[in-house]
Amino acid sequence: MAPAPAPTAPHSDSRFGLGRQVRLDGPLRLDSGVALAPVDIAYETYGSLNADRSNAVLICHALTGDQYLASPHPLTGKPGWWWRMVGEGKPVDPARHFIVCANVLGSCMGSSGPASVDPVRDEPFAMRFPVITIGDMVRAQAMLLNHLGIERLSAVIGGSMGGMQALTWPTLYPDRVESAIVIASTARHSAQNIAFHEVGRQAIMADPRWRGGNYYGDNDVPSAGLAVARMAAHITYLSEAGLTEKFGRRLQARPDSPGGQKTFGFDADFQVESYLRHQGLSFVERFDANSYLYITRAMDYYDLAEDHEGSLARAFARTKARFCVVSFDTDWLYPTAESRVIVHALNASGAQASFVELSSPFGHDAFLLEAPELNRVVDGFLRAGER
Amino acid sequence: MAPAPAPTAPHSDSRFGLGRQVRLDGPLRLDSGVALAPVDIAYETYGSLNADRSNAVLICHALTGDQYLASPHPLTGKPGWWWRMVGEGKPVDPARHFIVCANVLGSCMGSSGPASVDPVRDEPFAMRFPVITIGDMVRAQAMLLNHLGIERLSAVIGGSMGGMQALTWPTLYPDRVESAIVIASTARHSAQNIAFHEVGRQAIMADPRWRGGNYYGDNDVPSAGLAVARMAAHITYLSEAGLTEKFGRRLQARPDSPGGQKTFGFDADFQVESYLRHQGLSFVERFDANSYLYITRAMDYYDLAEDHEGSLARAFARTKARFCVVSFDTDWLYPTAESRVIVHALNASGAQASFVELSSPFGHDAFLLEAPELNRVVDGFLRAGER
Repeated sequence: MAPAPAPTAPHSDSRFGLGRQVRLDGPLRLDSGVALAPVDIAYETYGSLNADRSNAVLICHALTGDQYLASPHPLTGKPGWWWRMVGEGKPVDPARHFIVCANVLGSCMGSSGPASVDPVRDEPFAMRFPVITIGDMVRAQAMLLNHLGIERLSAVIGGSMGGMQALTWPTLYPDRVESAIVIASTARHSAQNIAFHEVGRQAIMADPRWRGGNYYGDNDVPSAGLAVARMAAHITYLSEAGLTEKFGRRLQARPDSPGGQKTFGFDADFQVESYLRHQGLSFVERFDANSYLYITRAMDYYDLAEDHEGSLARAFARTKARFCVVSFDTDWLYPTAESRVIVHALNASGAQASFVELSSPFGHDAFLLEAPELNRVVDGFLRAGER
Repeated sequence: MAPAPAPTAPHSDSRFGLGRQVRLDGPLRLDSGVALAPVDIAYETYGSLNADRSNAVLICHALTGDQYLASPHPLTGKPGWWWRMVGEGKPVDPARHFIVCANVLGSCMGSSGPASVDPVRDEPFAMRFPVITIGDMVRAQAMLLNHLGIERLSAVIGGSMGGMQALTWPTLYPDRVESAIVIASTARHSAQNIAFHEVGRQAIMADPRWRGGNYYGDNDVPSAGLAVARMAAHITYLSEAGLTEKFGRRLQARPDSPGGQKTFGFDADFQVESYLRHQGLSFVERFDANSYLYITRAMDYYDLAEDHEGSLARAFARTKARFCVVSFDTDWLYPTAESRVIVHALNASGAQASFVELSSPFGHDAFLLEAPELNRVVDGFLRAGER
């Protein structure tokens, strides 16, 4: 699956070692009121745009995701994060679809974010980067689609924070979206969601290496704080039952004790401790702490009803898309009840909506893992729209 | 409610400004194999031991609790942590009961712990303090009861980690316990429980001020790490619905905006953020970071079945106590399923056990908050034993 050649466009693409990246003049008018210009967007594409430009599918990534959804990650070398869903013979198939995935605004894989160079000061923005919203991420994606010559999306698809973007797309661009698939997501961040994110932010900002966000100069980054943030968040991505099945109270194997033993110390005695520490440590090698602050903030600010006098149904009033909403029964981060809120509002607004709760042991992360039923749902929904 | 005069005992009590404290010669043989001597135990008592010494009630406190269950905390000035349950006219009543509550081993309110002075080196133990277990806490309490001349307990009562101690008491001292009340607790720490504690420990140990635990000299303590640990843990004490009811997505009032507004910055915009930050900051003023490491470790090591070939029923085989097990429907830290595991094992062992799941919006913390039903259950169970 080689990236497709980009259609002729007013701006030239260039390679920065991190895949495809475009600098758009902007300005992008942000929800905060700030005008951001220029706007860098890093993205990957798979497949080709067909003659009538009707096969474009936009995939939106989650908090710590990126544009490498179906090709190896350039830093970790790991397969793309959604290789189970996107690829030859998969529900989203480059043989049928022109697939676009852009690194979200605020992130650190090539799109404009706190690590980007502020052209006015010729140094990284750091915390001078404007606070952004999910709506701003969507507007930046729309700018990219304009650049790529894509007027309409056959589908916009996302899980978790990607689902927030997929849900927001038809509300901001009713004429540009034919269908939206919203997986393991929510129309607003709950108090508990905000609370967990705030713990992560405080962990980062408590790290003396954070230095108000100005750590880019010497590359002595707040990895300890970011690792703790990741560890706390990671627990919320897994189900209690899944953790019990995967680790239970099993102890780490040791050279002198294959079954493990309690050391009566503070090393990682339990496998789950070792696993979490690994999650924290490997995350800091591929993610920027300031981006973590900005993107969690965008998620916490997310409340789709808010811009529509508190009525979610009203948010969907102008949409013309078909919606497919999917939740997982063991997801306690964005539980099924949150998907039901979305579906009730879609129904109230008269939108065409299908909804399914899938069973999985994996909690919130189920959408990223082996989930054959999810693939069947997405495949069926997309093919129904293509008929 | 003045503390009762201590019965004549081989060791003299003394006051250290933190209530009643006794130094026992020991040694206390710990589960790790270490012999701890001497053993300091700080405690409070309420009411008087009756003539036949049959009215003693031991209350066991939770992770961050202390001996001040029904009298003001000496550092914060706040009412005792269980004033709703313990006091005149309450289920545990100094007019009827001789109530004892001891600061657990490893803690920081006067009992031996990492902040205590190691007599061998004449400096604080810090991380040289031996790792302790729930069983060790119970053995230390038994030493205190010996000192106080209390052979048998009419009841041992505890919530959360206090419930672990209450559950363990009859297994270690079958002849000394007539009844045990185990509230919002578990017979073992789950992978998820361990994971949340590990996040807290990593947050503390990542704080450069922690310095391997050697921060007592200059009192420049790892408060940032401890605050983050507390914040993460605090979320687990509350229910999602409770957080939504209490805070939802409400914004902080500001001088120029009574209803609050998004600042598009990283201040605490949401009330729940401000609340969590306050929880973290106020906690560090009354708790020692190393104690937090030791006590969470003891909880993670807790698996009552483990010492009985993995059979919880076998753990209860020798007990003679009546058990009362209480859970709360919104407690996701130690959910009702964990209490059911206990009750099934009690039933299998032939122990007398009653079990009730109470409804509360408050999650795990329900046992500390307004819970009239809990008071009725405890009252009824205690009076049934006194008849």
